[in-house]
Amino acid sequence: MFRFTLEKTEGAARLGAFENARGRVETPVFMPVGTQASVKTLSGPELEDAGAGIILANTYHLYLRPGHALIRELGGLHKFSAWNRLMLTDSGGFQVYSLANLNKITDQGVRFQSHLDGSYHEFTPELSMAIQTDLGSDIVMVFDQCTTWPCPPEDALVALERTTRWALRSRQAFDTRNALPGTDQALFGIVQGSVYPELRRRSLEELTAIGFDGYAVGGLAVGEPKSAMWETLEALEPHLPKERPRYLMGVGTPEDLIEGVKRGIDMFDCVLPTRNARKGTVFTRDGRLVVKNSAYARDERPLDPDCNCLTCTRYSRAYLRHLFATEELLGPRLASLHSVYFYLALMTELRTALREGRFDSWSRRFLARYRGTD
Amino acid sequence: MFRFTLEKTEGAARLGAFENARGRVETPVFMPVGTQASVKTLSGPELEDAGAGIILANTYHLYLRPGHALIRELGGLHKFSAWNRLMLTDSGGFQVYSLANLNKITDQGVRFQSHLDGSYHEFTPELSMAIQTDLGSDIVMVFDQCTTWPCPPEDALVALERTTRWALRSRQAFDTRNALPGTDQALFGIVQGSVYPELRRRSLEELTAIGFDGYAVGGLAVGEPKSAMWETLEALEPHLPKERPRYLMGVGTPEDLIEGVKRGIDMFDCVLPTRNARKGTVFTRDGRLVVKNSAYARDERPLDPDCNCLTCTRYSRAYLRHLFATEELLGPRLASLHSVYFYLALMTELRTALREGRFDSWSRRFLARYRGTD
Repeated sequence: MFRFTLEKTEGAARLGAFENARGRVETPVFMPVGTQASVKTLSGPELEDAGAGIILANTYHLYLRPGHALIRELGGLHKFSAWNRLMLTDSGGFQVYSLANLNKITDQGVRFQSHLDGSYHEFTPELSMAIQTDLGSDIVMVFDQCTTWPCPPEDALVALERTTRWALRSRQAFDTRNALPGTDQALFGIVQGSVYPELRRRSLEELTAIGFDGYAVGGLAVGEPKSAMWETLEALEPHLPKERPRYLMGVGTPEDLIEGVKRGIDMFDCVLPTRNARKGTVFTRDGRLVVKNSAYARDERPLDPDCNCLTCTRYSRAYLRHLFATEELLGPRLASLHSVYFYLALMTELRTALREGRFDSWSRRFLARYRGTD
Repeated sequence: MFRFTLEKTEGAARLGAFENARGRVETPVFMPVGTQASVKTLSGPELEDAGAGIILANTYHLYLRPGHALIRELGGLHKFSAWNRLMLTDSGGFQVYSLANLNKITDQGVRFQSHLDGSYHEFTPELSMAIQTDLGSDIVMVFDQCTTWPCPPEDALVALERTTRWALRSRQAFDTRNALPGTDQALFGIVQGSVYPELRRRSLEELTAIGFDGYAVGGLAVGEPKSAMWETLEALEPHLPKERPRYLMGVGTPEDLIEGVKRGIDMFDCVLPTRNARKGTVFTRDGRLVVKNSAYARDERPLDPDCNCLTCTRYSRAYLRHLFATEELLGPRLASLHSVYFYLALMTELRTALREGRFDSWSRRFLARYRGTD
């Protein structure tokens, strides 16, 4: 059964771990995103070697292709994609707003057109739970209504109240699901309320009254200023249950991960390391590096001299620049490998700093060297 | 210094090895193609694990991007691409006909327009040698005039005579080159003469009079019927020097490799395993398998149950089919890895059969099971 243990704190920052029958994941943790049951360009062994203990997959995409029934028939998402560590699936809630067309939200659910072929579909809390049950992920997310930014308080309230009703329906559907044999699933609630502290607190109260294995913060990193995100988190943090993991959805840059941990977050996911890498931009201890730039054509150094990934131990910036210039698929692949490795190594270092009671000084030193771009 | 040893024969089939200061390669050998200094989608460790002892790179492509001067400046192709085993570079001769535009052939060389930006260039035997010297490949190919098919005998004769003159100029330029320090290069001649046995013999005689470390057969696999290719080889084989490696350029399918070995060939290269894999077709012991087909959507078997590559030991056809259906880059990558592994494993098995004096029965058994498509 899913269990979270809080080991140590430093200010609001938390060191801990969650585990289920499949494995144990130390927190704070970054979860690489494998939208279509594949962390783009990377193999399972590469993710394992980089230290990934949990990856994310998207309910919306897998529902459309290849379909949750097929994945269940083949034994669930872990077996299908040959990934034996933990997996979290989102609810599809975010994608039906951001990717699908012509979505129409009612209390029943969200009607939308597939971004692939325009076909009509409707996601409800019950269907989202049924899909995630068939996928057999370790952490299931409730179906929520995400707000965009800017969002007037009256709209935020409507979304919040609907999110609570849907959270209850998600909980009920989850508790009566026809579980995939051999799975051990946890259910997380999602706090909404945009940038309004009182709405966030109300959302959280309503969710904790229902009761979940963990609490995610949704509706942030949707375009608001960074300061608004951090202020919202700071106001919410004291009210979040200490004994449950907290997950800041869709965040972020290396700086964001550190700032999030500082504000009591345990879990993060983001497409940034892989998406940027495919376009020729990687993350290093000195900040972003646009390796496809001609400035690196003669640069024999690795992307990051302090990194131990295959890309950095074997290949030069000059070679990577050549791979991007000639559109060789090995370029996006080696860049993705580095950036995912970098993110995971950063979190390992961060956890060590927490364990040794020096998170504050460690994060100051990291951020002083890291050249941010936001 | 480059050295070839013939260990054993069975009929015309030959077991041997070539070596230089960098390493030793057992023959018959298949050389994966890394056109732009990258075997498409694959990393160096993957190629090493698959048993690749020598890979090919294309002079034409590397001359255009990133340029041979830059590669020399960075220590040569091995250092640039972080590949420490052997490399063969072609002369650029084939690409200026097949890829470039508006090429004009004179005795001086071939004038052509880049397929990338239309810029004008001219390849001569001297320039081809200078480029390959800067690249620092282990095996350098002479600059030749390749014939297409069909090719009237009078045209074949013109190309043959020019190839001989260019082979001599290549030899002279090679022998007086400004070698990249630390390299140990061999020079191979290329026999032309289309499908005419007497022209092939004459081309070979003229080349052996000049003297090369190995002899390639060019101008085959350019559209002629397979029977014409094999008959041409059968007529040529008794005249090829026994003590030098023989290289059939641009060939071929798994069946072709076996048929080529049967006719005394020691070396092969082909883009087929990687190019087909990127489009969702792989090679197995039972023949080609179009894994992107919907027929495999629920197929839990590996691509080839007899294969030990990562793709076959970890992933199902159903998952690979999903990766191709969703255009995930991991699909082309895992398929390429399998097919290159399959080709290299096939050659290892073939060499073992030769060593044990059972090449004939082994090849019959392989071909009986393998469902060809030609």
